[in-house]
Amino acid sequence: MIVVMQTAAEKGQVEGVECRLLEMGFAPHRIQGTGRVVIGAVGEQKVVFPTGLEVLPGVERVVPISAPYKLVSREVKETGTVVEVGGLKIGGPEIVVMAGPCAVESEEQLITIARLVKAAGAQVLRGGAYKPRSSPYSFQGLELEGLKMLSRARDETGLKIVTEVLNPQEIELVAEYTDIIQIGARNMQNFSLLREAGRVKKPVMLKRGLAATLEEWLMAAEYILAEDNFEVILCERGIRTFETSTRSTLDISAIPQAKSMSHLPVIVDPCHSSGTWKLASPLSRAAIAAGADGLLIEVHHKPAEALCDGPQSLTPEKFSRLLTSIQPVAEALGRGVSIGEDLSMTGGF
Amino acid sequence: MIVVMQTAAEKGQVEGVECRLLEMGFAPHRIQGTGRVVIGAVGEQKVVFPTGLEVLPGVERVVPISAPYKLVSREVKETGTVVEVGGLKIGGPEIVVMAGPCAVESEEQLITIARLVKAAGAQVLRGGAYKPRSSPYSFQGLELEGLKMLSRARDETGLKIVTEVLNPQEIELVAEYTDIIQIGARNMQNFSLLREAGRVKKPVMLKRGLAATLEEWLMAAEYILAEDNFEVILCERGIRTFETSTRSTLDISAIPQAKSMSHLPVIVDPCHSSGTWKLASPLSRAAIAAGADGLLIEVHHKPAEALCDGPQSLTPEKFSRLLTSIQPVAEALGRGVSIGEDLSMTGGF
Amino acid sequence: MIVVMQTAAEKGQVEGVECRLLEMGFAPHRIQGTGRVVIGAVGEQKVVFPTGLEVLPGVERVVPISAPYKLVSREVKETGTVVEVGGLKIGGPEIVVMAGPCAVESEEQLITIARLVKAAGAQVLRGGAYKPRSSPYSFQGLELEGLKMLSRARDETGLKIVTEVLNPQEIELVAEYTDIIQIGARNMQNFSLLREAGRVKKPVMLKRGLAATLEEWLMAAEYILAEDNFEVILCERGIRTFETSTRSTLDISAIPQAKSMSHLPVIVDPCHSSGTWKLASPLSRAAIAAGADGLLIEVHHKPAEALCDGPQSLTPEKFSRLLTSIQPVAEALGRGVSIGEDLSMTGGF
Amino acid sequence: MIVVMQTAAEKGQVEGVECRLLEMGFAPHRIQGTGRVVIGAVGEQKVVFPTGLEVLPGVERVVPISAPYKLVSREVKETGTVVEVGGLKIGGPEIVVMAGPCAVESEEQLITIARLVKAAGAQVLRGGAYKPRSSPYSFQGLELEGLKMLSRARDETGLKIVTEVLNPQEIELVAEYTDIIQIGARNMQNFSLLREAGRVKKPVMLKRGLAATLEEWLMAAEYILAEDNFEVILCERGIRTFETSTRSTLDISAIPQAKSMSHLPVIVDPCHSSGTWKLASPLSRAAIAAGADGLLIEVHHKPAEALCDGPQSLTPEKFSRLLTSIQPVAEALGRGVSIGEDLSMTGGF
Repeated sequence: MIVVMQTAAEKGQVEGVECRLLEMGFAPHRIQGTGRVVIGAVGEQKVVFPTGLEVLPGVERVVPISAPYKLVSREVKETGTVVEVGGLKIGGPEIVVMAGPCAVESEEQLITIARLVKAAGAQVLRGGAYKPRSSPYSFQGLELEGLKMLSRARDETGLKIVTEVLNPQEIELVAEYTDIIQIGARNMQNFSLLREAGRVKKPVMLKRGLAATLEEWLMAAEYILAEDNFEVILCERGIRTFETSTRSTLDISAIPQAKSMSHLPVIVDPCHSSGTWKLASPLSRAAIAAGADGLLIEVHHKPAEALCDGPQSLTPEKFSRLLTSIQPVAEALGRGVSIGEDLSMTGGF
Repeated sequence: MIVVMQTAAEKGQVEGVECRLLEMGFAPHRIQGTGRVVIGAVGEQKVVFPTGLEVLPGVERVVPISAPYKLVSREVKETGTVVEVGGLKIGGPEIVVMAGPCAVESEEQLITIARLVKAAGAQVLRGGAYKPRSSPYSFQGLELEGLKMLSRARDETGLKIVTEVLNPQEIELVAEYTDIIQIGARNMQNFSLLREAGRVKKPVMLKRGLAATLEEWLMAAEYILAEDNFEVILCERGIRTFETSTRSTLDISAIPQAKSMSHLPVIVDPCHSSGTWKLASPLSRAAIAAGADGLLIEVHHKPAEALCDGPQSLTPEKFSRLLTSIQPVAEALGRGVSIGEDLSMTGGF
Repeated sequence: MIVVMQTAAEKGQVEGVECRLLEMGFAPHRIQGTGRVVIGAVGEQKVVFPTGLEVLPGVERVVPISAPYKLVSREVKETGTVVEVGGLKIGGPEIVVMAGPCAVESEEQLITIARLVKAAGAQVLRGGAYKPRSSPYSFQGLELEGLKMLSRARDETGLKIVTEVLNPQEIELVAEYTDIIQIGARNMQNFSLLREAGRVKKPVMLKRGLAATLEEWLMAAEYILAEDNFEVILCERGIRTFETSTRSTLDISAIPQAKSMSHLPVIVDPCHSSGTWKLASPLSRAAIAAGADGLLIEVHHKPAEALCDGPQSLTPEKFSRLLTSIQPVAEALGRGVSIGEDLSMTGGF
Repeated sequence: MIVVMQTAAEKGQVEGVECRLLEMGFAPHRIQGTGRVVIGAVGEQKVVFPTGLEVLPGVERVVPISAPYKLVSREVKETGTVVEVGGLKIGGPEIVVMAGPCAVESEEQLITIARLVKAAGAQVLRGGAYKPRSSPYSFQGLELEGLKMLSRARDETGLKIVTEVLNPQEIELVAEYTDIIQIGARNMQNFSLLREAGRVKKPVMLKRGLAATLEEWLMAAEYILAEDNFEVILCERGIRTFETSTRSTLDISAIPQAKSMSHLPVIVDPCHSSGTWKLASPLSRAAIAAGADGLLIEVHHKPAEALCDGPQSLTPEKFSRLLTSIQPVAEALGRGVSIGEDLSMTGGF
């Protein structure tokens, strides 16, 4: 790190900082500028910011040089991580498509949608059994019953399952039923939950918080890796900005940026980002074109009756068209995406 | 609510929406505008947004008319709530001052600071036993040992205690030792934690999330009230914006705004907002002038050695001066603030 | 528009609002809800917000129903506008590529770069003669000399020219030398400049302001169209958010969103958005995949010596590779992009 | 500045950077860390960012050490600037109050309001003759006629005048009629306008842009000082954030922060910040408590008929009450505020 002294700092104050750096195990290197002194601290970086140096007399600020994350860093592991889920590879050349309803509402609803998204080409079924809802009066999910339905949908269709967990206590239970554990945007800095997710030996999909910087997102992933679970998938789902015509702002730059900072695979949720199914296709294409390894798409066969997030859910027919529209883009990047039946021709949706 | 139809909506689509409103228990009132149709839905509001109407053919958007929160609303309860903590009133005419270290580090550290903030005039001791840290490699708190030290500091000084809880499982334990349970900014939408906090019969201080709108903040409080715990204190601690010269941006307007929307008391944390003790005094004065009911201040007797948040901690000497500087402002608003000894004259800090 | 009365509004207050609406030429339609009254105002929308109704006693808020822009709206003109610049079509099936240095620095620099971007496949040469710089001590552009060099580069290469204008007084002069007038992000709400740009009969490229909503951006375009200049190209160049790892956040959703709200063509500037040439390729691909009609790319043959924005400039070699990488994405969307020589093989860059 | 090399940078790349620094007139100081090399550049700071070093091979990033502004800096001039306007001191111990309508609408309207704000205690009359409106269909101001009315209002009341200028061409004309030239938030980075404002020898009030960092705001002021006009008043008027319950977010921290970074006086516009007169009083008190040197308040005797910004305008009665409510806060800070008649008792408003 670099300690920038105030222009008015006195000699004794500079020496005080150097003395403290020595105590901390660093070798201080003083640079006498024309206006002020700057001190470089050399040594294996063991500090966490703020360092305590900030409040020493004469110090203006302390500039970190190294990134605070280690295990998630591309500097530590050069090759991209491929997360394997029972044969399915996330982060490899094939684009992975996860699709399904916002919430598990009933066995019939789930199985119907599962069959349709499978037929269209999806590899993973998403569906919430525990729902984080901004209102206590909204539908909160079927909980254990929902988990069981997801499990049955897997048996029926062969799809892998991804579902969200809200509470550290419930992680083991959820892990029994699901293939991938989802940590939602609102819980991205729920450190108790992150730590538990690190202890369970299941792949974890970590959504970016609404106001999380890339660095904070990677630090949240670091919590999971630090518990020895390296099977982490990052999911960009839009950040909060001043723009109101979309629900949030898909940070498309975060895809190449996260992939250059980290070795973890990155997937994109275009439905939550925008808040409307109308943007799902162009944003999915953009995500693939920017280098995303997969997509998370909300699909409901009756969006008007969905218990949550209907406006941002695609019908199976539209979902099928979306896959058709992303395939040539994936191929343009030398990647594949598996496409099934063309549901857009079937009536009834 | 109001359903705004597209300009190109057909008669059948308008009728479809009206039909659905009837099914939902609303009386639809059609207004034929010059460019489009708008439908008012009359009835006791039972819906949660999105409503499902958004995806019906011909619908452009649905405009809510009533606020989504109920129990926290000033419309439901006109008089301001005064939260009582063993005789101490938060939300009454007296400004309440909570002060102490970011983290409990040792019994000696805590007791030293507790005596000093008590002497200066504080009524509540803050101190973290469970710390939410963005890095897994940072000091994570003394946990149960920290709770016990807080309890001893209360016995020593008579100060009330406020401390943060991170995990729904730990709420009962924390509630045994503390007078006020703090829910931090990162957990503002940790709904499992909110619900547990509603079930425990202790006052809860709910910090605003870094990217939470006022409406979302009040909805988070609604979770606690919905479990029958009405002893909630809101705490504004800065929001995330593009500005980088301060750590976050204290939303001063949120104080009068939250107090007009809700009956709950509002306190302010000027240290976390700004990230530097240098702004603590002007921001504290501003908070009081805008109508805040109290302050949450970080105080450490040796900021350069603090295990967390040193740069934003005041020395007891500076804390004493801060109190002296806010007193005339409080009085200008017809409110009081209790001031103790003038520590700014004592040497050693 | 809809006037939402307070729950406590009295009968006389409701009548007062209705009376005022009648004076304003609207037919008021009262809807008596269970909690409050809502009044729909029917009539040709002539009002501008705020309307004055907001301050009448008993009024809680006024909700606009129609968008405030007219001439730029897709509702007014269903087919997409194609802006023609001497045979070049912007907004048609072909992706248009504008490239060149941030600033015109010398005739030699400009002609060198112009030839290279032309060879690589660009159709338009960008280059600033008047530079908006955040510091008064930065290079401010060659002004008239720069315009003349741009004109000579056009003669040499046949490329069209786009260059920025900062001052309403200089528009006529700039218009003499350029094919497309650029209005920069910082001037998006410089209404004097917008009006002058509307009066000159040249295509205008309007960059989105750093903190402008889509609605404000379209309203700024409306200023130009309202002066009878319909040749407007929108340019998304990133918005300001809390994220600091990129210079700004490319709002990829703004592309399909602006194209659905408006009939104007939309191009994207991936270099300013991100602040680094490293993201130019993935963001360009994403922009095309999301439906952009063109790209604006900074190219410099010696980025380390560029007088401005070197870090976000591509070498001609990298620019050539970028074009090669977007072509298959354009084709995947059924669009073309003209590619010239492969400069990435030539040495010397 | 500090050049941070990549961990993988080679010896030759480090030498290349050092060589370039020497060419630029800096003495390079290499610090060999455990993971990477960092180079300090010593010399009189003549560079502007980006420096060109960013694109050299092996460079990760370049960290500025000194602030980019000079003349506005508190480091250059330690004592606060007091701007004098014909005897009135802005930045001295007395709080200055500027009040008046958003727009000059007619001579009668202006004189009526001028007399009332004067009676209540204001020292400066504000009123727009040239109005920056987001819609081309909104009232755009009375222009020259408006300037003449402002001038007559000054003759009638003795109030100083502040009014906005939009176009560099109009500055001389506006300067003839006004005492203080206002540059609005949307034009904060209209550099042509800033430069002209620097050339006119009149005090300039520079509003902060909606998305401007403190550094950008001070750099905009630097443009004016660089032309030898040192009579600059900064005006904080709210920044754009995600929060929607207020029109913008008053950045209260910007007051002490700007005053510590710069010697210029800072005033606050609580009406534009919040978009509602309801928050004008608490925000005015907060601004004074945080150290503001003055207030800019919208006052209209008939807000419901105001041609612009009615909802955020106070009646003279409310304005009078606002002054009464800020006086004790000003006194609590050892500052004065002149209070006139108590208009809140007069009927008719």
